[in-house]
Amino acid sequence: MVDRRFFENYGPFSLAEIAAISGSELDNKANAERIIDGIATLDQANSRQLSFLSNVKYNDQLATSKAGACIIDPKYRNRAPSGMALLLSDNPYKAFALTAAAFHAPSTALPSIAASAVIHPTASIGDNCSIGEHVVIGSKVEIGNDCIIGASSVIQDGVIIGHNCKIASNVSIGFTVMGSDIILHSGVRLGQDGFGFAFDGKTHIKVPQLGRVIIGNNVEIGANSCIDRGSGSDTVIGNDCKIDNLVQIGHNVELGRGCIIVALVGIAGSTKLGDFVVVGGQAGIAGHLTIGSFVQIAAQSGVARDIPAQTIVGGSPALPIKQWHRQNALLSKLLKKSTTND
Amino acid sequence: MVDRRFFENYGPFSLAEIAAISGSELDNKANAERIIDGIATLDQANSRQLSFLSNVKYNDQLATSKAGACIIDPKYRNRAPSGMALLLSDNPYKAFALTAAAFHAPSTALPSIAASAVIHPTASIGDNCSIGEHVVIGSKVEIGNDCIIGASSVIQDGVIIGHNCKIASNVSIGFTVMGSDIILHSGVRLGQDGFGFAFDGKTHIKVPQLGRVIIGNNVEIGANSCIDRGSGSDTVIGNDCKIDNLVQIGHNVELGRGCIIVALVGIAGSTKLGDFVVVGGQAGIAGHLTIGSFVQIAAQSGVARDIPAQTIVGGSPALPIKQWHRQNALLSKLLKKSTTND
Amino acid sequence: MVDRRFFENYGPFSLAEIAAISGSELDNKANAERIIDGIATLDQANSRQLSFLSNVKYNDQLATSKAGACIIDPKYRNRAPSGMALLLSDNPYKAFALTAAAFHAPSTALPSIAASAVIHPTASIGDNCSIGEHVVIGSKVEIGNDCIIGASSVIQDGVIIGHNCKIASNVSIGFTVMGSDIILHSGVRLGQDGFGFAFDGKTHIKVPQLGRVIIGNNVEIGANSCIDRGSGSDTVIGNDCKIDNLVQIGHNVELGRGCIIVALVGIAGSTKLGDFVVVGGQAGIAGHLTIGSFVQIAAQSGVARDIPAQTIVGGSPALPIKQWHRQNALLSKLLKKSTTND
Repeated sequence: MVDRRFFENYGPFSLAEIAAISGSELDNKANAERIIDGIATLDQANSRQLSFLSNVKYNDQLATSKAGACIIDPKYRNRAPSGMALLLSDNPYKAFALTAAAFHAPSTALPSIAASAVIHPTASIGDNCSIGEHVVIGSKVEIGNDCIIGASSVIQDGVIIGHNCKIASNVSIGFTVMGSDIILHSGVRLGQDGFGFAFDGKTHIKVPQLGRVIIGNNVEIGANSCIDRGSGSDTVIGNDCKIDNLVQIGHNVELGRGCIIVALVGIAGSTKLGDFVVVGGQAGIAGHLTIGSFVQIAAQSGVARDIPAQTIVGGSPALPIKQWHRQNALLSKLLKKSTTND
Repeated sequence: MVDRRFFENYGPFSLAEIAAISGSELDNKANAERIIDGIATLDQANSRQLSFLSNVKYNDQLATSKAGACIIDPKYRNRAPSGMALLLSDNPYKAFALTAAAFHAPSTALPSIAASAVIHPTASIGDNCSIGEHVVIGSKVEIGNDCIIGASSVIQDGVIIGHNCKIASNVSIGFTVMGSDIILHSGVRLGQDGFGFAFDGKTHIKVPQLGRVIIGNNVEIGANSCIDRGSGSDTVIGNDCKIDNLVQIGHNVELGRGCIIVALVGIAGSTKLGDFVVVGGQAGIAGHLTIGSFVQIAAQSGVARDIPAQTIVGGSPALPIKQWHRQNALLSKLLKKSTTND
Repeated sequence: MVDRRFFENYGPFSLAEIAAISGSELDNKANAERIIDGIATLDQANSRQLSFLSNVKYNDQLATSKAGACIIDPKYRNRAPSGMALLLSDNPYKAFALTAAAFHAPSTALPSIAASAVIHPTASIGDNCSIGEHVVIGSKVEIGNDCIIGASSVIQDGVIIGHNCKIASNVSIGFTVMGSDIILHSGVRLGQDGFGFAFDGKTHIKVPQLGRVIIGNNVEIGANSCIDRGSGSDTVIGNDCKIDNLVQIGHNVELGRGCIIVALVGIAGSTKLGDFVVVGGQAGIAGHLTIGSFVQIAAQSGVARDIPAQTIVGGSPALPIKQWHRQNALLSKLLKKSTTND
């Protein structure tokens, strides 16, 4: 159950209302006026709560769930216990997301500028912004409307931030131009020097990093992730990219639209990703590569070559995924044979 | 030698006192009144200092060590140079830990609340707490007795912190309920949104993250590590867990009691670990898995399946450790054969 | 083109001046007085801008580049389009670095101490330092001349910092003695407890961490990287080491001179690296190992044994690089054979 200590509850809603909110369809119209107080997981929900099923791993929980209602793919409707009201959706996870957002819209901080924030007189800040305690905003910074900047975050000179951006606490941003509807979680670092040194046989000479970080709209970046600014051209994060925690993105990297980058991934300098690329956790991509659109890279993969669009790869060094699975099966077979022979 | 610039020294102690403190036994009672000024490593200790041997890698250093005394497993007592006083213990590392804590109890900051801290009037703070400069404490936060909150840390609305917790600088905590005797190192991020998006064929729709982070007693979390809050249920860290630096723990993950998670590990969403699981550095565990108690996962392993209790695994994809070693040996053999044939 | 919003431009310079600054030689002296306004990448530069070629991957861009001038290795001079002025250098990357630094010397913050900084009266701060907003400097801290400390950084009691150090925002430093000409990017954590626990069959007992972090001169450490202090001896980072973002360095680790540690690397406790070791991204090195000078460790390698000097290794577990390449080739061959047989 959602803890009211931390979250507002804007319910209850009737199932008819929830069907409208979530774009789903009531399996049985007789349930339209049934009242739902809130949302919960299948194993924790009670008869006044709504749950959802979107991962077959949890099919077993469905049968024993006490949830009053469930958002579900029509093909699983017969597995639900009798008495559970069903909301049918081809995309139950999306329908749940919309419902959850209606029940628990995040509480909006009242627009205000903390007395302890230090804001340069040449900075411009839009309407309805909330600037947290001990925030520092440098000269000529431009911040749009409806932005929230969390406590102790530091926005360096010249940075541009669009509208409706939520920046959490202890974030550092420099040399960055970002769009609107962006979420930066705590500890994000944007725009520091890329890792560039010229070795002259004796020591490493620092190469000035003279590019920027450019971030599109509707981007989310996880806690403690780092995006270095470009060395000459820019580091670019496309619209709708979602980046998890503790990710490293090197200088001059370009991400297309809608890429998903899972935690602890490293993308080395000057590599370009197309649109909707998915990179699994702890995978690494070497520098100066081109990764096509819709490529999927399995967790822990090591990518050292260009990958054509719509390919799925796994392993380190990365192989087409079927080849990687076959290689693992082959190793297993050889191992069994060799053990038998011992 | 321990640098008095940074550490207090509460010694000297006699060897009889150290035996009592450390639960070890003097090999030769004649040494009971010998005075020890401090502690040092085997290769650096002098005749007034105490050292310890707990890793066979350092057996060679024992023979040439100038340490006046050494805590040692009885089975190695004959390897010590004559003249070195010996304290015998079945667990020399533990005995050393207790001794070191007696010599160098960390200096306690005098309880005080910095003038620059911003504390919401509805927050409650226990006795004998030390609240650092520029700390921000939100509404309805509850902090127990004897806690230390380091400079520029941010404790968001509603967070609950038990007694005797030490929170370092630049830490961010939200949506979290934590027990007592907890150490959070600098840059820890607790309670940010988990990584949940529903794809609808066009874009990624954010799934509200409505759970919390629940942390037991006697837990330590390393610098810049991140623990996301649950999406619906909670993310749970059991009593006595020790988490190293730069670790990523996803939403809804549950760790049992006494787990050890080494640096740069990633644990994906909804995976459950039993008690006393050990996860080596840079290992990754996929989501929605169950890892039994006392499982050990070697460094850099990639775990994509459930693991039964008391199993040791290695490799990516992870195999039972013996099988992984045999596979590496087999590859080496095949390689030799193929090279000979070339 | 370099964005004047973020960077000063100290140009223009003539090609003769640039040849002198960069230590390169004009291919055609007739170009000596030609004026260059700034620098840009090969694909973006115009006829008044200078570019460089140091990676054969970009040879194709050379032929179509509109750059007015280019720093280039003499052996590629014939590939340049006619009309492009050439500056010849055996180390074009270094020559470019020197040129870029002349065009765009970073703007120097005027020396000042922010009113919101909290500085202990026993701390000493050198001449011409810039101390940012909300910085905290503890008792007996010593900071040399010409240092910059970024906003919300926390320097704990007793820390020593040399001359001309640039510390970015939201950095935490304790138990550390560092030299001069050091760059710490935002979110760096220095000197927290190492990860040391003694298990007694029931729980994990914390082992006091009583060493320091010692950092030489001319070191750079990337955003959100962590260096734990020693447990008894010190953690040591040698002169000229360059450490990327999100790197974990455990207690008692020693790095020699000029090591390069790429992002997301983990080095476990008590391991010693020689001089000029290069560790690729996401590689891991186990504890208590000795890695010789000039060793190169490929990205994602897992090192579990000592490595003799001047060896190149790859793979997990790491092998000599040729052996690793052969092993990958062998697997590919076996796979093809087995697939044919299916």
